[in-house]
Amino acid sequence: MPLYNAQVFIQLKDGILDPQGKAVEHALASLKFTGMSDVRIGKMIELQVESPNETQAAGNVEQACEKLLANPIIETYEFKLSQLNEAGA
Amino acid sequence: MPLYNAQVFIQLKDGILDPQGKAVEHALASLKFTGMSDVRIGKMIELQVESPNETQAAGNVEQACEKLLANPIIETYEFKLSQLNEAGA
Repeated sequence: MPLYNAQVFIQLKDGILDPQGKAVEHALASLKFTGMSDVRIGKMIELQVESPNETQAAGNVEQACEKLLANPIIETYEFKLSQLNEAGA
Repeated sequence: MPLYNAQVFIQLKDGILDPQGKAVEHALASLKFTGMSDVRIGKMIELQVESPNETQAAGNVEQACEKLLANPIIETYEFKLSQLNEAGA
């Protein structure tokens, strides 16, 4: 069965306070990094999905995002799929 | 001064154990998601950088990764820059 690599990017929605981002922003300023602002911390989750076709793989990853990986109330997610091997004969 | 959007992707190096990823993998299996494996959890950090040119912006972001955002001993990072506005006259 074809194997897909999925990269899932999860970020807080705009307008949701990001205290971790603020902390990093202050830390950057303390380290004399100037001109850096609007730090937002998100997650990147990489996983491999075995699925008969790309459409089903995408559906599975989307379900996994909705049910486990992301919190759809405060987070947005997007993902990229790339096929790792060819379908077996 | 031009403003750049930087997207920084930080991941554990290959071979470094990722307990959080393992936990997510087990949780996916408990939720009856089949065929998902090799879950690795990383970070995505988005920030805005004000800098006279893209080369300097990239240098600053790289320094920030080395000194604060990533732990270069166990993590790898890469980043993408995109310009948000044109340089003022």
